[in-house]
Amino acid sequence: MSIRAAWELRAQIKSVLIGDAAFLAMTAAAIDPQIKLVALSQQALRNNGLPNFSIDQIAVIDCQLDAHVRPGLLDARNGRAVLRTLDIAIGGAQQGIFDGIVTAPLQKSTINDAGVAFTGHTEYLAEKSATAQVVMMLATDRTTPPLRVALATTHLALKDVAAAITFDSLRRTIAILHADLKNKFGLTQPRILVTGLNPHAGEGGYLGREEIDIIGPVLQAAKESGIAVSGPYPADTLFQQKYLADADCVLAMYHDQGLPVLKYASFGHGINITLGLPFIRTSVDHGTALDLAAAGLGHADHGSMLAAMNVAAQMVRAGWAHRVHA
Amino acid sequence: MSIRAAWELRAQIKSVLIGDAAFLAMTAAAIDPQIKLVALSQQALRNNGLPNFSIDQIAVIDCQLDAHVRPGLLDARNGRAVLRTLDIAIGGAQQGIFDGIVTAPLQKSTINDAGVAFTGHTEYLAEKSATAQVVMMLATDRTTPPLRVALATTHLALKDVAAAITFDSLRRTIAILHADLKNKFGLTQPRILVTGLNPHAGEGGYLGREEIDIIGPVLQAAKESGIAVSGPYPADTLFQQKYLADADCVLAMYHDQGLPVLKYASFGHGINITLGLPFIRTSVDHGTALDLAAAGLGHADHGSMLAAMNVAAQMVRAGWAHRVHA
Repeated sequence: MSIRAAWELRAQIKSVLIGDAAFLAMTAAAIDPQIKLVALSQQALRNNGLPNFSIDQIAVIDCQLDAHVRPGLLDARNGRAVLRTLDIAIGGAQQGIFDGIVTAPLQKSTINDAGVAFTGHTEYLAEKSATAQVVMMLATDRTTPPLRVALATTHLALKDVAAAITFDSLRRTIAILHADLKNKFGLTQPRILVTGLNPHAGEGGYLGREEIDIIGPVLQAAKESGIAVSGPYPADTLFQQKYLADADCVLAMYHDQGLPVLKYASFGHGINITLGLPFIRTSVDHGTALDLAAAGLGHADHGSMLAAMNVAAQMVRAGWAHRVHA
Repeated sequence: MSIRAAWELRAQIKSVLIGDAAFLAMTAAAIDPQIKLVALSQQALRNNGLPNFSIDQIAVIDCQLDAHVRPGLLDARNGRAVLRTLDIAIGGAQQGIFDGIVTAPLQKSTINDAGVAFTGHTEYLAEKSATAQVVMMLATDRTTPPLRVALATTHLALKDVAAAITFDSLRRTIAILHADLKNKFGLTQPRILVTGLNPHAGEGGYLGREEIDIIGPVLQAAKESGIAVSGPYPADTLFQQKYLADADCVLAMYHDQGLPVLKYASFGHGINITLGLPFIRTSVDHGTALDLAAAGLGHADHGSMLAAMNVAAQMVRAGWAHRVHA
């Protein structure tokens, strides 16, 4: 999936694949015999940057697996190798070798079964880059304008969501969202619509008080600091063109309030963007698709990976433009 | 809005408007001078049924208001008159005079301000018809196949949702949904997809245990009784064509998990259907639109009302067909 996407975008995006070079070469050969993989060392990249390859070449940093891969099958023996690929990506991004990181799906259980506590890519990237708080955003450009949905809370049991929305956490989430929409998306004055926590945004306190006690005051404080937020709005009526047409992002309070509509609108080709990190990071919005991997090498739909790479490249350009104009 | 819809559908649906005849006549004249309203008594309807009007006539049961109406303005003095129109509709439906009830939006506060405790149309209809439990379903025919989303809980603060999902309540909800999809929609073996309560449907217990402890066992029991349910599925990935294409209805666990995507897909023209009542009841899915009412008589978009009337008529026909074949 990653090879196919890197190959299709090779004229626009200089990709560096990080993985087991032998396995990647075998997969590439099955996709298109014309693809040539060229091994690069991190050291060479650091010293000389990415060389100018010919159009039929893709760069690879070899990170050998510990056990032979059988597509579609999980093997805990390779759990630690998966983390090594992430470490290389993080190191390269922090040193400015890479402009951003795009991650493919990963089976969490494989890493956990290898004896490493691991809750997800995003948490790992935050920890390794010493980032106190990140914000998860999903996006699609299949709509006009593009639909972006950020989350105030992510992977929490529903019963724990209400207590997790505090003045401070929501205030920080909005600050990160505002800053990254400016710095990474190049939006001068990003417009953020915020949902309520409760149905009908609490209906004036009849269906919950969090809008009155927490969300409203946070939005007021954010407005006073110059952030273009509005809300809290009822989530069920917010996702309509008449509101979305004038917004850059929706901030939903929790996972299943914001993501069903985003994934519906993106036809399964949404992408996941991690805000708050000191580098650009995008990802596909789907899981490991083990069934597709098992069905044959390179048969997984790579639409979401193409979108994740394209959005990362757009963010790199927008970030450059923002820094030039700032 | 109701007059305009009844007028446009007069060739297909015999509508009886219940309201202040003088006010309705004034509104009708502003919409189209050709519309003639004909007053009917409940008694005459009961004895003789609906007479065959000419094509430019709409039947009205007069239910006088207590104070003069100014469009777009609320007046508590008319709160009780609004309830009288509902009582007439319920009585007529229970006596078999009406095949179903279609309700227009209503401002709850007006009734409460009139000194009557009132939480909503749906609750009122359930109470007056001695129905122990109803199920709220929203639907749109703007998608192929039509998208229907029923809710296991409705107007509850988010923090109270998890505790409200019990084995018994969910079991009853599924039984009502199954029965009404058969009896009122004419579906021989309705296929119901059920969401989880937690993100990723709990991810095997890591993000909440309700799927394991409650939802899973309820679905197992429902299957054993011959109901075609499946799940629990992650809500964020369930609303995709590959799953919806083979389903008649999605049962979501709570309001903001199911309705944002339904309203997004319906472009604001969804309709609300109350299941479990001893009669057919549909409604528009939007609020009172006081701003539109104030802007001018009959200027409110009546797309949702047209859809609510059309679906009610389809349900009447499907119910007849079901009874004939059963």
